[in-house]
Amino acid sequence: MNKKDKILIIGAGLCGSLLALRLAQRGFKVAVFESRPDLRTVDISAGRSINLALSDRGLKALRLCGMEEKAREICIPMYGRLMHDKEGNTFSSNYSGRENEYINSISRGDLNAILLDEAEKHKNVTIHFNKKCKNVDIENNIAHFKDYNTKEEFSVEAAVIFGADGAGSSLRKSYISERKFLFSYSQNYLNHGYKELEIPADSSGKHQISKEHLHIWPRGDFMLIALPNMDGSFTVTLFLSYDEGEFNFENLTSEEKITEFFEKEFPDALALIPNIKQEFINNPTGPLGTIKCSPWSYKNKTLLIGDSSHAIVPFYGQGMNASFEDVFVLDEILNQDLGDWETVFKTYQKARKKDTDAIADLAIDNFHEMKDHVANPLFKEKRKIEMDLEKTFTTEYSSKYSLVTFNENIGYNEAMKKGRAQDKALLNLISGDEVHTHLDMTKEELKVILDKVTKETNDILQEDKIAGL
Amino acid sequence: MNKKDKILIIGAGLCGSLLALRLAQRGFKVAVFESRPDLRTVDISAGRSINLALSDRGLKALRLCGMEEKAREICIPMYGRLMHDKEGNTFSSNYSGRENEYINSISRGDLNAILLDEAEKHKNVTIHFNKKCKNVDIENNIAHFKDYNTKEEFSVEAAVIFGADGAGSSLRKSYISERKFLFSYSQNYLNHGYKELEIPADSSGKHQISKEHLHIWPRGDFMLIALPNMDGSFTVTLFLSYDEGEFNFENLTSEEKITEFFEKEFPDALALIPNIKQEFINNPTGPLGTIKCSPWSYKNKTLLIGDSSHAIVPFYGQGMNASFEDVFVLDEILNQDLGDWETVFKTYQKARKKDTDAIADLAIDNFHEMKDHVANPLFKEKRKIEMDLEKTFTTEYSSKYSLVTFNENIGYNEAMKKGRAQDKALLNLISGDEVHTHLDMTKEELKVILDKVTKETNDILQEDKIAGL
Repeated sequence: MNKKDKILIIGAGLCGSLLALRLAQRGFKVAVFESRPDLRTVDISAGRSINLALSDRGLKALRLCGMEEKAREICIPMYGRLMHDKEGNTFSSNYSGRENEYINSISRGDLNAILLDEAEKHKNVTIHFNKKCKNVDIENNIAHFKDYNTKEEFSVEAAVIFGADGAGSSLRKSYISERKFLFSYSQNYLNHGYKELEIPADSSGKHQISKEHLHIWPRGDFMLIALPNMDGSFTVTLFLSYDEGEFNFENLTSEEKITEFFEKEFPDALALIPNIKQEFINNPTGPLGTIKCSPWSYKNKTLLIGDSSHAIVPFYGQGMNASFEDVFVLDEILNQDLGDWETVFKTYQKARKKDTDAIADLAIDNFHEMKDHVANPLFKEKRKIEMDLEKTFTTEYSSKYSLVTFNENIGYNEAMKKGRAQDKALLNLISGDEVHTHLDMTKEELKVILDKVTKETNDILQEDKIAGL
Repeated sequence: MNKKDKILIIGAGLCGSLLALRLAQRGFKVAVFESRPDLRTVDISAGRSINLALSDRGLKALRLCGMEEKAREICIPMYGRLMHDKEGNTFSSNYSGRENEYINSISRGDLNAILLDEAEKHKNVTIHFNKKCKNVDIENNIAHFKDYNTKEEFSVEAAVIFGADGAGSSLRKSYISERKFLFSYSQNYLNHGYKELEIPADSSGKHQISKEHLHIWPRGDFMLIALPNMDGSFTVTLFLSYDEGEFNFENLTSEEKITEFFEKEFPDALALIPNIKQEFINNPTGPLGTIKCSPWSYKNKTLLIGDSSHAIVPFYGQGMNASFEDVFVLDEILNQDLGDWETVFKTYQKARKKDTDAIADLAIDNFHEMKDHVANPLFKEKRKIEMDLEKTFTTEYSSKYSLVTFNENIGYNEAMKKGRAQDKALLNLISGDEVHTHLDMTKEELKVILDKVTKETNDILQEDKIAGL
């Protein structure tokens, strides 16, 4: 490892930009190649997620790179979910019982732009747009590109190549096609796809529904969600089966049927989406896939990072946070002065993979929670108890959601194991009538519940351990 | 669906031959194309598993096709595991407490041969060897082949194409490469590979160690196993990490090191493998991969069946049994007269996929059980209790192994769920000192244990259900 070694990063998206910035701050010489045009000069948002959820793990990595404050300037805090039923009634559910725990809606493009700006301030960084990576010769560490403007093809040789090129990573495809090693790989699609729509700002530029919530219209087999934007609009996303159920993406092909569907299922949302028909027909339907793979690295030459190594479904709001945390974890490994890139890469995967596997699985759990469980009485009772516990015992209790989202000092895997055991404990205690709640619980009453949940959770974890799970 | 429709089966291995036979028995016109030479005329066993475990699920499918008796003629019953420690001491552990429950060692080639013979007796079946499928045009249902002898390339059009072409399926690869639909796909490799060796028959043609057992040399991180052949020999398989631990496939490159490894870890086996050095160096090291995918079918045109849709690791001895059971389940679906192939294929996957996913996961569990847990006191205590329960309560208790292997009337998924809950219950009862055993347990004493295990198992299943697991 030599600071003069040329480092190539494929992809200047969120992960690639932050990685470039951090490696530049550490003194490395970095060249970044991105297939898209520079998003600071061209609007390329069509069809991609316009806003994302930024929470503590992502902020931790931004803080490391000195970017937390700038990011917070473009954040819209969301303190909880606001559920909408078919009659237009709403009820809210906070993300945490602690006031300082909330997630943020942030524009993908705006955040990417400030990261690119900051990276480019470093003389040891160059960023090249409209350069599509076709494939990587992983044995000789040569990446082959095509320039979208000139149509010319060219190659770049580097000491180390990072594939921060997202779910469709060309570096990962080269791992598969070059067959130099046994590559474990999975791509798993949900039977649901997604389509983005928009609730515009009102005539005075204000948000038409609460901007302090992530809105959910849970309908069991499908759902609509909405996240606020700084300009007063909301980005709305419909998650719906491709081919199952009465309404699905395959049969929602006529304006009449689209209107019928929204009138029946989402009348209050329909009233807020003026261009529903055009948007539904013109906006693309995207797939929802999970990608896992191993190994992430090849020798001392290449490393997959971010979505290229672990693309996940969006339901935990952790995709960007997980990718940013990758940069944080890699930085910690670099602090260990391990001497060579191969050891760095292997140590990084060993530290990180169990956590990215966990968030991938948690994100699928949350799909079912958001579209279905949030409207379930047992689940609502559980959330109510958890809010009370978090509010009353601020340092002693964290729900699964809090462990995953707001406890950035433990890994996703630990958060998953503890959080799932807690959920199981609580659901069984409620279902078995072993805990009882009412309005205005006293601290003593809540302490009894906390002790029962803690004991039951520890029993579950211990029994799983004995069974080798 | 028309009996005159031309059906093409890619692959005349175990699954393809049985499928061809069954479809012929049902009156369909079947053409089978196989890449290898006819194994009845050429010895092509080198490097492939020479013997396999045949048990009740496989036998059920063979019975359906009238082949059970012929298969049993070439079976060697194995009633349990015989474990060998480093000092050459052995201890046995039966597969079941019931005498009529055992597995069978059978020659892959011999079984394949009798299936091919039987299929060829039907006038509506043709089998073509040395014809390698290169890819399938899945939209037009045309399979492209190359003849290994003449080197000529040719195409075959069919009404329906079955891909029974194993873990490296060309039909499955065409699903991936043609990108006509969202294809969920995973290939996951263990960090261990395998290598086959041989314990020859003694000078009088007899087996040198018990032929009534599957032999295991469990060593925690790796293991050796041996299954008997009809000719008095044993096929021995070493399962070892590619690159981890003191000894691994990457560093076992010299004759000295190979000998050192076997002398240290498997001295009693070494004494029985005269050609260890040549075999170790000349026989290939194979990978251990699990393949899952979905969907298995495309429109009314093609279906993946057997290993092409669900290749699994060999540790539960269920690979062939699962593929044969595929044919049995498909046959049941055909009995429903659903009218068109598309409905047949979708109904088949819906009925079958949860079970093949389960056996894939169970097979990986059993890898850890065989190389490690079998020598663990807690595990041995569990197995002892289970044998007593099965022997005493023949209709009331079946261990996970029995549920998976000998209870062919329930699916793998149900066997897995119930079996895992039972294992968890028993391990926790033993570990918590809540059940006690001694030699010569009375029926009354065992009944107490049975009741405790049953209650605890039901509690575990109920708690998982409430937690939505």
